[in-house]
Amino acid sequence: MTSFVFADLVALASLSLLPISWMRDISERLRAGEPAASLFARLVAERSVADPDRFAWVHDRAVASLDRATAGHISPLPWSDVAYPPALAAIVDPPALLWVRGSVDALAAQPVVAIVGARAASPYGLAVAERLAGDLAARGVMIVSGLARGVDSAAHRGALAGGGVTVAVLGSGADVIYPPEHAALAREMVERGAIVSEFVPGTPPNPFFFPQRNRIISGLARAVVVIEAGEKSGSLITARSALEQGRDVLAVPGNVLTGRNRGAHGLLRDGAKIVETADDILEELHLSAGVNLRGPADASEPAKAPVDAVLASLTAGEPCDLDAIAERSGLNSARLLPRLFELEVQGLVQRVGGGRFVRIDRPC
Amino acid sequence: MTSFVFADLVALASLSLLPISWMRDISERLRAGEPAASLFARLVAERSVADPDRFAWVHDRAVASLDRATAGHISPLPWSDVAYPPALAAIVDPPALLWVRGSVDALAAQPVVAIVGARAASPYGLAVAERLAGDLAARGVMIVSGLARGVDSAAHRGALAGGGVTVAVLGSGADVIYPPEHAALAREMVERGAIVSEFVPGTPPNPFFFPQRNRIISGLARAVVVIEAGEKSGSLITARSALEQGRDVLAVPGNVLTGRNRGAHGLLRDGAKIVETADDILEELHLSAGVNLRGPADASEPAKAPVDAVLASLTAGEPCDLDAIAERSGLNSARLLPRLFELEVQGLVQRVGGGRFVRIDRPC
Repeated sequence: MTSFVFADLVALASLSLLPISWMRDISERLRAGEPAASLFARLVAERSVADPDRFAWVHDRAVASLDRATAGHISPLPWSDVAYPPALAAIVDPPALLWVRGSVDALAAQPVVAIVGARAASPYGLAVAERLAGDLAARGVMIVSGLARGVDSAAHRGALAGGGVTVAVLGSGADVIYPPEHAALAREMVERGAIVSEFVPGTPPNPFFFPQRNRIISGLARAVVVIEAGEKSGSLITARSALEQGRDVLAVPGNVLTGRNRGAHGLLRDGAKIVETADDILEELHLSAGVNLRGPADASEPAKAPVDAVLASLTAGEPCDLDAIAERSGLNSARLLPRLFELEVQGLVQRVGGGRFVRIDRPC
Repeated sequence: MTSFVFADLVALASLSLLPISWMRDISERLRAGEPAASLFARLVAERSVADPDRFAWVHDRAVASLDRATAGHISPLPWSDVAYPPALAAIVDPPALLWVRGSVDALAAQPVVAIVGARAASPYGLAVAERLAGDLAARGVMIVSGLARGVDSAAHRGALAGGGVTVAVLGSGADVIYPPEHAALAREMVERGAIVSEFVPGTPPNPFFFPQRNRIISGLARAVVVIEAGEKSGSLITARSALEQGRDVLAVPGNVLTGRNRGAHGLLRDGAKIVETADDILEELHLSAGVNLRGPADASEPAKAPVDAVLASLTAGEPCDLDAIAERSGLNSARLLPRLFELEVQGLVQRVGGGRFVRIDRPC
């Protein structure tokens, strides 16, 4: 799956042990082609005390994490691997390394919808989450959420009941299931989907990690559906991440008397699309409602000639890095990355090593 | 209260016995200053068989209605009366005569919000209607609705509980209370507000009258709030009327699993403002939330010099008809009427006899 040698993974694992506030820079430098090992050394030297003990501590912890991953059947998936989810690669701060427990292929499923919401959900919130996830999953939509109590786990359960694929993003190591009562659900998800984390295996759950984790939930998805978010719900952080990442935000309305929906209604007030049924979500994603997306694409329709600044700036078969594409297309990275992601999903562009992209003229 | 003589009222009552599809023409001609009696004779002659028996039948029925109104303490309020609600006068097809049971002054209360919704409302719908109406009424907002089962009567009850003024618009004569179990509520409303109808006293309730009645509910209001409207709810007719009349439409969200809110959610999807609390409504009406609107206006602030095409086309103390204002201001009647209504509410313009308006430079 990966062309990386062990040393590269150790360097990437070392990078992922650095502070989250450095991640944006790390992503940018990796994308620009800087090798992980030299980037790690440079950042530590520039921003910290570059003493040998500290390097050794991080190196040892990275190696131990990789050992633990191997023992726990967890695959470390580097940012530049072709199996790394393109939607996540397109955000400004993707994890340099994603730890995947279960099927790496599950992460390739398309399209992806995130369903998030209250931990202390009402029976109504749970029922809506389970129904929406089930209906979407039955039509081939992959459901991503956070395995939390309440809406998250209801969404995972609904997706499994709908016969679909579902992925959980944790705020702990992929082998540390929290809350503990979700152990059975997690086992089923590992068999039929995946549990992923940017935190090294064995990392205990930490409430401070959850907001940071939320950017991955939205980053994996084309759209985030919020159910029963209160006024200060963590789901609103996921919604904000989604907006920053150029993803759609949708919200399910509910009772106005309980306060349980103030956050979701606030999103509606701010322009989020209103969701009553799975069809509303499919429509927003411009996917035809009522069609099973799992069916083969219709190949009889010839593709229209692309008239697109990004495509026009690429020559088929000639890999090009972000700076060059930005210069040729005239788009800054905030607009360029989502567009490249779309083109990649459409099979018109492929990511290759060294943070470069190549145009594919005939998708196969 | 009214400067009309009995013969004028008979003519207006006669006009109100004509088919509803004629009402728009009737309103336009009355506004243009055509006397009710000649208009009645002309319309019947042009559109019907103008035989003396028919005239006599209508005349007798009009006289009997006025007699019945007197006996039942119902005031016939002509369109051109200064007490006729200006918001209602501004719609394209206001009733030529509004039959008012209770306080004609109640109709002068400002601002007015209509609350409408499902007859077969859930406890949630009833609770929301009662709470919103109560909170608005407590802040001096007049609540208008249709006295129907469900949301309508909950809104009236809430307004009364909030110590406010509330008005019901019926699809029957103002003295024919339907459903019968609302007799006690109706009595209280007559004491503390009003029950109005465009149908002559004694008219039995007729489901075919309800859609037509709904234009009066929205016509009286600055905003219509929809609670628990299903997919084919009559409340959606009221919402459509409101939009045609240039009034705001707001909707309360709710459960997506029951189907009870599909109509209300459809309105939200189409751009209606979402309502959770009375403050949301006050905000939409540009009324400061949390302020009791009943307080006296602050007279210390000098009024700004008006820069307004309609005001500029009027000279203080010189009554002017609609055609002349339209010509001078360059506004067609669809834009002119709501603007005149606003100016009237602001006390800058006053309606006088013969469908004319006069500018008032210093509101008293």
